[in-house]
Amino acid sequence: MNAEIISVGTELLLGETINTDAADVARLLSEFGINVFWQTVVGDNPGRLEQIVRRAKERSDMIITTGGLGPTCDDLTKETVAAAFGKKLVLNKKEEARLRGLYKERNTYMTDNHLQQVMLPEGCTVLVNDWGTAPGCAFEADGCLVIMLPGPPLECGPMLEHRVRPLLEARSDSLILSHNVRIFGIGEGTMEYQLRDLMNEMTNPTLAPYAKEGECLVRITAKAGTKAEAEAMIAPWIQRVRDELGVFAYGVDSDNIQSYAMNRLIESGKTISVAESCTGGLVGDLMTNTPGASGVFLGGVIVYTDEMKMKLLGVDAECLREHGAVSHETAVQMAEKCRARLGTDLALSVTGLAGPGDDGVHTVGTVFVALAAPEGTYVRRLYKDKWGRERIKHAAANHAFDMIRRYLEGLPVEYIEDK
Amino acid sequence: MNAEIISVGTELLLGETINTDAADVARLLSEFGINVFWQTVVGDNPGRLEQIVRRAKERSDMIITTGGLGPTCDDLTKETVAAAFGKKLVLNKKEEARLRGLYKERNTYMTDNHLQQVMLPEGCTVLVNDWGTAPGCAFEADGCLVIMLPGPPLECGPMLEHRVRPLLEARSDSLILSHNVRIFGIGEGTMEYQLRDLMNEMTNPTLAPYAKEGECLVRITAKAGTKAEAEAMIAPWIQRVRDELGVFAYGVDSDNIQSYAMNRLIESGKTISVAESCTGGLVGDLMTNTPGASGVFLGGVIVYTDEMKMKLLGVDAECLREHGAVSHETAVQMAEKCRARLGTDLALSVTGLAGPGDDGVHTVGTVFVALAAPEGTYVRRLYKDKWGRERIKHAAANHAFDMIRRYLEGLPVEYIEDK
Repeated sequence: MNAEIISVGTELLLGETINTDAADVARLLSEFGINVFWQTVVGDNPGRLEQIVRRAKERSDMIITTGGLGPTCDDLTKETVAAAFGKKLVLNKKEEARLRGLYKERNTYMTDNHLQQVMLPEGCTVLVNDWGTAPGCAFEADGCLVIMLPGPPLECGPMLEHRVRPLLEARSDSLILSHNVRIFGIGEGTMEYQLRDLMNEMTNPTLAPYAKEGECLVRITAKAGTKAEAEAMIAPWIQRVRDELGVFAYGVDSDNIQSYAMNRLIESGKTISVAESCTGGLVGDLMTNTPGASGVFLGGVIVYTDEMKMKLLGVDAECLREHGAVSHETAVQMAEKCRARLGTDLALSVTGLAGPGDDGVHTVGTVFVALAAPEGTYVRRLYKDKWGRERIKHAAANHAFDMIRRYLEGLPVEYIEDK
Repeated sequence: MNAEIISVGTELLLGETINTDAADVARLLSEFGINVFWQTVVGDNPGRLEQIVRRAKERSDMIITTGGLGPTCDDLTKETVAAAFGKKLVLNKKEEARLRGLYKERNTYMTDNHLQQVMLPEGCTVLVNDWGTAPGCAFEADGCLVIMLPGPPLECGPMLEHRVRPLLEARSDSLILSHNVRIFGIGEGTMEYQLRDLMNEMTNPTLAPYAKEGECLVRITAKAGTKAEAEAMIAPWIQRVRDELGVFAYGVDSDNIQSYAMNRLIESGKTISVAESCTGGLVGDLMTNTPGASGVFLGGVIVYTDEMKMKLLGVDAECLREHGAVSHETAVQMAEKCRARLGTDLALSVTGLAGPGDDGVHTVGTVFVALAAPEGTYVRRLYKDKWGRERIKHAAANHAFDMIRRYLEGLPVEYIEDK
């Protein structure tokens, strides 16, 4: 089966938006062994869109479009594609009701132009969009399967996973199943180097490395007749990858190190608090993204200045003077005093230099993360220089979560990164 | 002038690599007012590459390719493109010497296949690649300007800036300039509805709506002979859009409401602290993403439980009992007590129900945001139900920043969203 990806949006042709949707679509299709020979980007221009759709119709069995489903007058994908297949757009009552409900919930007045989002090709399968307002759709005509998806990556991504994947599974004779072994603490390159021989020798299941913000994963994908068969093929390889990567492999099919650590913490019932300097509240923010966090995360302090470190936590002026705010000693005091003051089982502290300016003492990117527990206080020292402010903060936060999960799983918690 | 971008590489069609080159090329071209109507990705397949090059030749005045210039046998771009224009490849002695020098420096033996990198179309302009091994090239034939660039973004990027830009500057007669008016508080659809007539009637400058996380913008783009001319064409329209959208239009060419508000705050020199409940530290985190934040943001408390609200801030048990944690009264106490305890000019508080579970009293998505100032305390009540935890937190945080900028600019700060 040959598919073709058509991305619609002038912002793509202007280079304002990087076309991540096309890569997401392509990855899903390749999982199903569907060839992609062409990928085209056109602007919000019905004439050129029609041209490429007509050409795609002739040379491909499947067309997936992204973008141009929204409420504004330059959103023309559905009209144009439907016309190229001789289909009319009809108002979908069910989607209209859903849309009106959404706007009501958001307390925003729904102007008439929004209705164009629920004008769908006659007889199409509606791909309900639970991540935005504009639904996607799919239909088969002239021997071609057509799928239209919204452009915003935060909508397109989940639509691919929860709407298009099932659609493709239903059509494919054999089923494809994947599990992800999540990795924290080594980069994609190192991981890939360690698993290269395995990856090259294997055909079914296959092993593929992926990089995610601050962490990475190995995807194990099996093609089989039944789900049970596929699971049986994958299971030993999950174990094999875990053996190869040791403590760096933290979970299977988890979202990320943050939610993984928080769910372990919620299971453990241990309470936690945070004392944040350079992360400015990021660790607490990430903790509260996990539903159920309120059961274990009680609160914390953001102590961005030395004065606040003394005022809100009682860090010794002497410690700050002697070792500086960015030091092993200060990190330990912050964590231990936070644990004592807020009365939690565990407490995390982060203090470091996120830049751009340095303090004349440390290199930008120097961060200390400490975890205070009844057994004692564990510290990590990181050097993330030249990473930029936000990435340094996120790297530090991810290490904080990794320390929680390692502590709860009885694995070595401390770590010193060389300059 | 109409240009067309052709990206060559099977890794792009498989979704293993995101096509950032195409966006980089497009941005440079749009700076010169060169229209890009088509952008195509093909694999390392000479047949399909030739097809698209021949089509591009007919419909475009300029073709820019990225990728396929390397030493391996699937690097076929030069051969294929040259052939489509009836040109031979010839060994470029100067580049050969440069290449041999490079490999000598790296102490790596240069196998013969590497020489294919310096086989260039006869009579082309060599685009020397100081960032990698494979040179780019440019030639004009059949009324079409052809530019070929290496695929690796770390080579393609600087090649665009230092090789292609001068080439285009020498040829261009007009330039394109854009300014963005940033909007907070109304959605893209509503904004577009309000400006639709303007957008439709205008050709140069043009007005275009864009949605960004939690906010939106209007882009005003002018095509003119000189930068000064373009600026003069845009200026009155910036004013017109600001007049149309009133207090919702907060800035021109700003990144987002967060950095805009923080930079106004840094200018004002007023110090601030935060007391966060449902946002869990997000507001402080976002504040510290703006370089220079340490000058005005001193710290804060994350009070996720009633106990912490009393312990760290001194909120009255009675207030919590009478009105509940998610209430106008508690928000006001949190902000005022935070301002007093931490000793800052201003203090923000956020308390709400981010869900998924509710507290039996409030609907999920009910959030109160308060700003305590010397003049008094301002409060916003939001209803963001069914938005999902993280979006509710971000919406609340953005409103907090909007309250700062409105306060500093003497605009109405309070706002009540109806259920």
